[in-house]
Formats: sequence, structure tokens, C-alpha cells
Amino acid sequence: MTITLGHGAGGRLSHQLIERHFLPRLDNPALAALGDSATVGDLALTTDGYVVSPRFFPGGDLGMLSICGTVNDLAMVGAQPIALTAGFILEEGLALDELDRLVESMAKAAEQAGVPVVAGDTKVVPRGACDGAFITTAGVGRLAADFRPEPAKVTAGDVVLISGTLADHGMAVLASREGLRLSGALTSDVAPLWDMVDGLRRAGIEVHALRDPTRGGVAQSCIEIAGDAHGAIVLEQRALPIAPPVLAACELTGIDPLYVANEGKLLAFVPADQAAGALAVLQAHRLGHQAAIIGRVEAGPAALMLETELGARRPVRMPSGELLPRIC
Amino acid sequence: MTITLGHGAGGRLSHQLIERHFLPRLDNPALAALGDSATVGDLALTTDGYVVSPRFFPGGDLGMLSICGTVNDLAMVGAQPIALTAGFILEEGLALDELDRLVESMAKAAEQAGVPVVAGDTKVVPRGACDGAFITTAGVGRLAADFRPEPAKVTAGDVVLISGTLADHGMAVLASREGLRLSGALTSDVAPLWDMVDGLRRAGIEVHALRDPTRGGVAQSCIEIAGDAHGAIVLEQRALPIAPPVLAACELTGIDPLYVANEGKLLAFVPADQAAGALAVLQAHRLGHQAAIIGRVEAGPAALMLETELGARRPVRMPSGELLPRIC
Repeated sequence: MTITLGHGAGGRLSHQLIERHFLPRLDNPALAALGDSATVGDLALTTDGYVVSPRFFPGGDLGMLSICGTVNDLAMVGAQPIALTAGFILEEGLALDELDRLVESMAKAAEQAGVPVVAGDTKVVPRGACDGAFITTAGVGRLAADFRPEPAKVTAGDVVLISGTLADHGMAVLASREGLRLSGALTSDVAPLWDMVDGLRRAGIEVHALRDPTRGGVAQSCIEIAGDAHGAIVLEQRALPIAPPVLAACELTGIDPLYVANEGKLLAFVPADQAAGALAVLQAHRLGHQAAIIGRVEAGPAALMLETELGARRPVRMPSGELLPRIC
Repeated sequence: MTITLGHGAGGRLSHQLIERHFLPRLDNPALAALGDSATVGDLALTTDGYVVSPRFFPGGDLGMLSICGTVNDLAMVGAQPIALTAGFILEEGLALDELDRLVESMAKAAEQAGVPVVAGDTKVVPRGACDGAFITTAGVGRLAADFRPEPAKVTAGDVVLISGTLADHGMAVLASREGLRLSGALTSDVAPLWDMVDGLRRAGIEVHALRDPTRGGVAQSCIEIAGDAHGAIVLEQRALPIAPPVLAACELTGIDPLYVANEGKLLAFVPADQAAGALAVLQAHRLGHQAAIIGRVEAGPAALMLETELGARRPVRMPSGELLPRIC
């Protein structure tokens, strides 16, 4: 048995890797919770490695991604980011100019997120031992006592919101990498989401769960949350906001936007009577103009269903392999 | 200008990289302190990437190293490790058995250090995009109010102790990699040091500074601390504990053990009247049987001097390039 690309895709194989190979050995309650961030007292902790290719893409780069991704993992458990660390693995021969641009982007994203990068490390490996530059960030956040979104709180009757259009990041990176003609029109949505989450908190919205739909896209996030909530999540196809060039690129490539990574969007699960309020908060944020209510949670077996305009439903399965390697 | 192996060696080029390329962009007080760990309130934070080659070597492996190195960076600022994160970057085709062995080692080291791995991430890159497996860990520790070793506290009159023999890790990895005949006799010292540090704390030793002499070895650590302390560190050649096979391997290869990485040793700087007490604590620990007093701090320009048995002194310079790439 060997490691395959699918083991890193965040889907079924990733889950198997975690459940069969990591958890039995490293078992502890904080890890076993398998949230976007782990909870240790009133702290939230998370880490993510970033290996995106190409390193620069429309709308962002590896550096920006490495900050936003980790800030967002903290934000999704309701934690205010307080400090980040960054570990660089660089290939001998990487242009220093390029490193400067990546670090510049990290600085900009960190400032935007209001969090300092307090510790770092750099390893250089000989030519050929890594592809250019990988960055692994970790983050520590502070949890508020009265704002603890978590998937187990999701329940039948909840409404599902998304803070904007689907699939922008994944399609922008793919188009940039493959030289698709559409690439000019596609831009990654990479952005830090803490401020938007804090908006929900400050507005007193009772948020049951938050999730940033990265690897595996909205489909994977919803399937995971359906599992935690022991309910069915039903998304309305026509309610899904998708930018026309992204839709065109998806149709061209045959890729379902539900499976494509986002890096600046969140899914929010709130009680039905809070949905309008939550939507207003999201839409008032500069990153949320296209926020929308996209579905609801129903009692029943854990599953994700997509409902067409005519009311037909089809189940959406968890992706098993790797749709787009090195997307983040 | 491109990245060279020397930029990752922890020496002069690493310092230039940090001071010219990272600090100006990511500047904040916690980062600028450039300690083994950053301080944020009563928390200590650190990160390190591990790219050691080969991944399995006498006395340890990449997994064990990735836990011990980060635990030790926390311990060196006096912080009790409370949680770790681990980010894996794996090459497609890596044997799952091998990953299992690495994770097993991580679990063992984490248990030994008394700290859970609470969050993780796995990225898989296509064959050829990385060399097997890299692990980046980050750690959070809790600082005690009354135990804050830091290089700025080091002052003339302080005594320098080391917790055991020099250069074991670097020479074991080198010998294993290069297939030196001596390799059987060489064993890495990789081990978590928090318990030993806690012993110093519990004994009420007034520890001015601690440092684990990893990349760049004892030489680099002492030169850095001499700079922070604005004093001269004088090490006595004959007092340096070096295991005979390590000395033989150093002589064979022409490598100065002062520059070779350790992964389970600490340097302690204490007031002269605390030296005997500190030595007793170190020697009573299962990792410290060969602890020794190896030098002292004198007033004068920041420098590291090596004193021979006849009393002659020679300056020891900071390594500029990469002595042993991928040693950790």
C-alpha cells in the first residue's frame, strides 16, 4: 500500500488515512474531534500545509493562501486568530525575488486578518528534493465562551448559507495551471474570513456551525456536516451562486463546482429564524455581497441531496480520489 | 539571487535571510525577538520543518525528530509544551508502512514529552515533487511567570553547561547517509528536553538562558548567545564531552563537532554560584549522565573562544554555509 494523491485530497481516502493511520496512534480527544481547528481550553489550534501549483495565480499566491487558509480554519470554530507560525521548505535555486513576493503577500494577508506571524523556520532542500516552495502555517486563536459553532449543533430545520460564489479558487488555479483560455476571467477568492465571522458573532446570530469549503468543495463540507448532524442537507441547485466564467469553465472541463475548492467562502448553518439576519450580516461585508441562502437541513439519514428547479433530488457523494491535485 | 542550501543551515546566510527578507515584511515584536520560541502573553509558540535524509537513522527517525525538535524549542524558553500540530507533505508512492512507522515514532515521542498532537494536515504531491516525506510541526507552550530563561539575561561570570555529549545527531545522520563504516557506533541523541528543563525549574536554579544546539551546533548557539549577552563565551576544549566514536567520525571526515547538530542536548547559562546545583540536576536526569560544565562568560566583545589545554584561545566563527544539508 502506498500513498496516492487521493490521500491528500480531503475526501474519502483522506478520512481513511486519518482514521486508520493517524488517529489510532496519536489518539487524544482534541485530535479525535477532527474539527477545522482543535480546542485546548479556550485556545483553538490548527495547521495546514500549502503546496499549490502554480505558486502565483490570478487573485493570489502561495503566500496569501498560507495565511488565509489557517486564519479561516480558526475562524470556522469561532476563534479569533491571535498568532501564526510559518515553516518554509524551499528548493535550492528558488529566486529570492519570488520568496520576497510570497512573504510580501503573507504580510499583507496577515495584516488584513489582524494577526501577526510570530515564529518561523526555513529549511532548504537540494535541487529536485521539493518543487520550489512549500509553506506550512499553524495558528492559535482565542475562543469566546458564548460563540462556539460546531457541526454537532446542526439540526433539522437549520438553514444553510454561503458567503458568496462557489468554486472560484479551484477553477482559477486549474485554469492558470493548464493554460485554459478562460483563465483571464477566473480569479481566486482567497481571503481571510475572521472579520466576517466576527460580524456574525457581534450581531448575536446563533450560529450552529461554520465551515470553509476548501478541498472537496461545498459537497465535501456538507457531507461531513450532515454526518455530524445526523441529518440530510438539501441544497437548491438554482440558489447556488456561481460566477458565469466559473460556470463556463466547469462546463468546459466537466468539473462539478460543488467539488471545487474555495479559499474565501464560508458555509453557515443557522436556525431558520436567524437566516435573514445572518444573510444581512454576510451581504453587508465586503467579501459577502453575493451571499445566499442555499439550502436547509432535514431530518433523515445523513446525506447531501441536490434539489433541481423541478424538485427532483439527487444524492451528492463524497469525492473519493483527487480531483485537482495541488490546489492549495 | 537564489536560495542556496546555506540559507537553510541556520548560520550567517540564514540570519541574513531572516533579517533582510522576512523581518522587514512580517515585522512584529514577538517575531523580532528571534528566540527559539515566540512569546505571546503567557504562551510560547514555535514551528520547525523537518526534511531529514535518510528518514530513518540510528537512534531515531523523521517522526521522532519532528516532535522532539518542537518540544525542545518550547522548553528552551522555559515553556511547558501543551499542544502540538503536525503538517505532513508526502510524495505520491510513499509506502503506507513507512508513514505508519513515522507516526508511531511521533506518538511515542509525544507521549514521552507529555504533550498531545491535537491537529494535523496531510498534503500529497505528485511523484518527484518532494522527496518522500516532510513534516512541519508547531507547538504551543505555557510560560511560568517565574521561569523565563532568555539570552539577554546572560552576563559575565555566568557558567556554561551542556547536558551531554556533542554532535551525536549530526554525525549519526551523516554516517547513515554516506554509509560510513563507523555508522554502527553512532546514534542520534534525539529526545524531548522539557522534563530536564522542568527539573532545573523545580530545583529553583536561576537559569539565565537555555539553548538546544541544533543546526550549526554548539558553536552557532554560543555565538548567538554571546551576541545577545554582549560578552565573550569561552569554552574549554578538554571539558567538551564527545563520545569516542563521534570524535573518530569527526576526525575521519574533518568535521568540527562544535558545528554539528544535536537534537537532545541543551546548553544552560547560569550564575557561577548555581553551576554545581544545575550540574547535579542535569546529571541526575536519565538524559544527562554526561552533563558537564564546559565554559564561562567573560566581559568583552561578543565572541566565542575555544581555550586549549595549554590556555591558548582561538576564536570560533559562525558557519556561513551549509555543513550538512538535510540533517533535521
